[in-house]
Amino acid sequence: MLKDLLKPLIGPLVRALRPPQPDLPLATWRLTRTPEGVLALDGLRLDELLDRHGSPLHVVDATRLAQNVADFLAVPPGAARGCEIAYSLKTNPVPGVLDHLRRLGVGAEAGSAYELHLALALGFDPAVIVYDGPAKSPASLRQAIAREIGLVNFNSRCEIAPFAAIARELGRRPRVGLRAVVPGGWGGQFGERIDTGAALRAFEEALSAPELRVVALHAHLGGEIAGAPRLRGFVAQVLAFSDELSRKLGLDVEILDLGGSLACPTVRSLHPLETRLNGTFGAGVAPRAKDSVLSIRDAVGIIVSMVAEHHRRAGRRAPRILLEPGRALTGDAQMLLTRVVNVHDPIDDLTHAVLDVGMCAASPLPNEVHQLFLVGPPRSGPRVRTRLVGPICSPADVVYASRDLPPLAPGDALAIMDSGAYFVPFASAFSFPRPGIVMVEGSRDRVLRRPETFAHMMALDELAPRPSAPAPRPQLARINSWGGR
Amino acid sequence: MLKDLLKPLIGPLVRALRPPQPDLPLATWRLTRTPEGVLALDGLRLDELLDRHGSPLHVVDATRLAQNVADFLAVPPGAARGCEIAYSLKTNPVPGVLDHLRRLGVGAEAGSAYELHLALALGFDPAVIVYDGPAKSPASLRQAIAREIGLVNFNSRCEIAPFAAIARELGRRPRVGLRAVVPGGWGGQFGERIDTGAALRAFEEALSAPELRVVALHAHLGGEIAGAPRLRGFVAQVLAFSDELSRKLGLDVEILDLGGSLACPTVRSLHPLETRLNGTFGAGVAPRAKDSVLSIRDAVGIIVSMVAEHHRRAGRRAPRILLEPGRALTGDAQMLLTRVVNVHDPIDDLTHAVLDVGMCAASPLPNEVHQLFLVGPPRSGPRVRTRLVGPICSPADVVYASRDLPPLAPGDALAIMDSGAYFVPFASAFSFPRPGIVMVEGSRDRVLRRPETFAHMMALDELAPRPSAPAPRPQLARINSWGGR
Repeated sequence: MLKDLLKPLIGPLVRALRPPQPDLPLATWRLTRTPEGVLALDGLRLDELLDRHGSPLHVVDATRLAQNVADFLAVPPGAARGCEIAYSLKTNPVPGVLDHLRRLGVGAEAGSAYELHLALALGFDPAVIVYDGPAKSPASLRQAIAREIGLVNFNSRCEIAPFAAIARELGRRPRVGLRAVVPGGWGGQFGERIDTGAALRAFEEALSAPELRVVALHAHLGGEIAGAPRLRGFVAQVLAFSDELSRKLGLDVEILDLGGSLACPTVRSLHPLETRLNGTFGAGVAPRAKDSVLSIRDAVGIIVSMVAEHHRRAGRRAPRILLEPGRALTGDAQMLLTRVVNVHDPIDDLTHAVLDVGMCAASPLPNEVHQLFLVGPPRSGPRVRTRLVGPICSPADVVYASRDLPPLAPGDALAIMDSGAYFVPFASAFSFPRPGIVMVEGSRDRVLRRPETFAHMMALDELAPRPSAPAPRPQLARINSWGGR
Repeated sequence: MLKDLLKPLIGPLVRALRPPQPDLPLATWRLTRTPEGVLALDGLRLDELLDRHGSPLHVVDATRLAQNVADFLAVPPGAARGCEIAYSLKTNPVPGVLDHLRRLGVGAEAGSAYELHLALALGFDPAVIVYDGPAKSPASLRQAIAREIGLVNFNSRCEIAPFAAIARELGRRPRVGLRAVVPGGWGGQFGERIDTGAALRAFEEALSAPELRVVALHAHLGGEIAGAPRLRGFVAQVLAFSDELSRKLGLDVEILDLGGSLACPTVRSLHPLETRLNGTFGAGVAPRAKDSVLSIRDAVGIIVSMVAEHHRRAGRRAPRILLEPGRALTGDAQMLLTRVVNVHDPIDDLTHAVLDVGMCAASPLPNEVHQLFLVGPPRSGPRVRTRLVGPICSPADVVYASRDLPPLAPGDALAIMDSGAYFVPFASAFSFPRPGIVMVEGSRDRVLRRPETFAHMMALDELAPRPSAPAPRPQLARINSWGGR
């Protein structure tokens, strides 16, 4: 009620006073404009991609993927070697993307039986597959042992004995690690805590099982690592615990698995208050400043030098470093194209535009800032405060609560940047099928995933056979009269 | 930080002082215990259903569905007729469930092109299909007209002219309504507001199109209708606007479409503060008291008598009443069975148990109170404060933040009640395939939907052909050395 009274007074003031929020340059994503002013990637017009493959559509940039991989695998200047990379499959589990990464020399981090299956089915060398996660099924653990994957990380002490029993039964001696929780890192259902001594006790238990080769210390900070201090603090904590393992248990790990959490440079989380101020008053949300995020190369440089320096001082052989990046590797190498379906009459000063994609295929959107571009030529004239909503019958289906945009019309195409992390795996087929995915590589577009079909949505369903003589349905005649025919 | 200090002090106090939170009786869901103490539905042991069909598993109670349908279609005592029912397909779009409802005489409310396709494919009489929603594709509108479905409701004025153009082109005169927003109801992207005059103007525009037969006033309060006062207030607002339509435009609607929003009697929303107090201190969450919710029969009785009385007083013929129930019709006729995968060592006084299902297949759970039962025999002895988490690698995958339960062990089966609304359509295949669905009817179980397979998850994907001579991969050899073989 109060909000409704204040809105017309405060809104214009807030919008007049807000700092400028210029878009990041198109070149950030290798986008260009054609002579007609239409957005293009590697010379391919984005509107033509939509015409050809249907809307909505994810577009993967193969070149950006390759750049990101090269950055992760680069050996920092002066270092003997760099990091090894296992992509966090859950982040964007698109077989065509994963196959591309595999060809570029990236390994696979599986977090479930399905992801382990996927990695093996795609031809990843078992030696470069890591199996993590809190719910590894016995069947998948058997498969991991039988296929001799590179590493199984225990998420919890309770996994050790059952796994050792399977290994014993299969007569193998699998390579294992254990996830340790540094103070301040994600805990709860993940890992064993260092500060309580639980992690040390779990390592001790694993070392006592003759069926296991304990080769790795796994840690994953969680949240987001955007700056050098947070990264340095985390690596230092992990190194301190690896010293403890060496000192107390005589375990010099072969692999330091530092997990993921590195930020995507062009996406930031949206604070709920920002969401409300923007939704209610049009306060705007500024994009992430690209230089505010540690680059992949700088992050790798920090990690490699810290680990090398630490072991040089300790007089121990430095372990291999394994990273499990997700959003930092694929987040900015994909965009989601969509078309406007309907544009409503303004309510007060706010115009609702309904898109053909919403929170069900783009679930991170309401909580993150993603750059948005009109695919067609830039339009002059006044901008209109616009709320972009999705197609489903839910008031929660708001993907951009407020943006100042040129007046939109049905059919207009929009590009939502950085859809390469958590859009695809969290997508549900709520009322609408899930989008197709294409990859652009060297001015060619290739289908990675066809748009979901109605048949696919019903493929697992079974119906009872229709009875030849239907049971009496007293209500139906009445209901049928609706039609009035 | 402060929380961590206070937790051990406040937690036990909060738990000692909290009011008792007894479970609702098993009979609420027609559940019984076998002589061995195992939960059963119509004599079928729930653990045996899991053994037979795999875990996790939705179990639909055909008998409860039929009871709910009968309640909705019952003619209230003393009334000439009752309501007509179109089930909101989006709420639980399982073909086997929908087919069951169709056989019981229920119509279909489609909110998208897919749902319109589904209704027609399942053999719903087109005359009992309503098409709503903010993003109706032109192709689906053509189909709606060509198949002569009972009603198309415009969500917004902007839909009128394009739809009339299609009707003109097809030479048909489709039956339409328009969604009006009562003050206090869901607005935003939904409907045209009554209070601003927008709804009246939109009706006027629709009436001026000779291609359209304007037969319905559609309104949907949104949120949840749990008590009689809220329902009465809403119906009165709609009736007042129908009077305005009659008075100002000479339109006496044939159908009053009052939408959905009726509560599920055994589920309530969880306030974020409750979630936090429970997660942090184990404050507990009480189930919804069943009698606190208007029964289906009482709701229908109120609606029918208000509409009849209103028109009797006004001296006009009463319209037919159409309801589009979702959660009230199917919410409590389905449960989700799951098994415990891992049980961690307690951290402080909290034990984490990992389930084989989490927020991705049960997305309403973190925000709603759903009763939870151990499927096996009741266990004596002290209870343990337990957090039930899902299987994915996300700290958000918490489905019950804190419950006092007997000590759990891997393999234990649990029944999560009332999974018949918004569990299935919002489900994503994040890391894990989606659950199967069976229906129990007269002591028989029948598969409605097979559990999702890995093949189904990859069925739409295409891979590039493997090159016969692979490109040089300088990093791979190094990474391969992980395996140490």
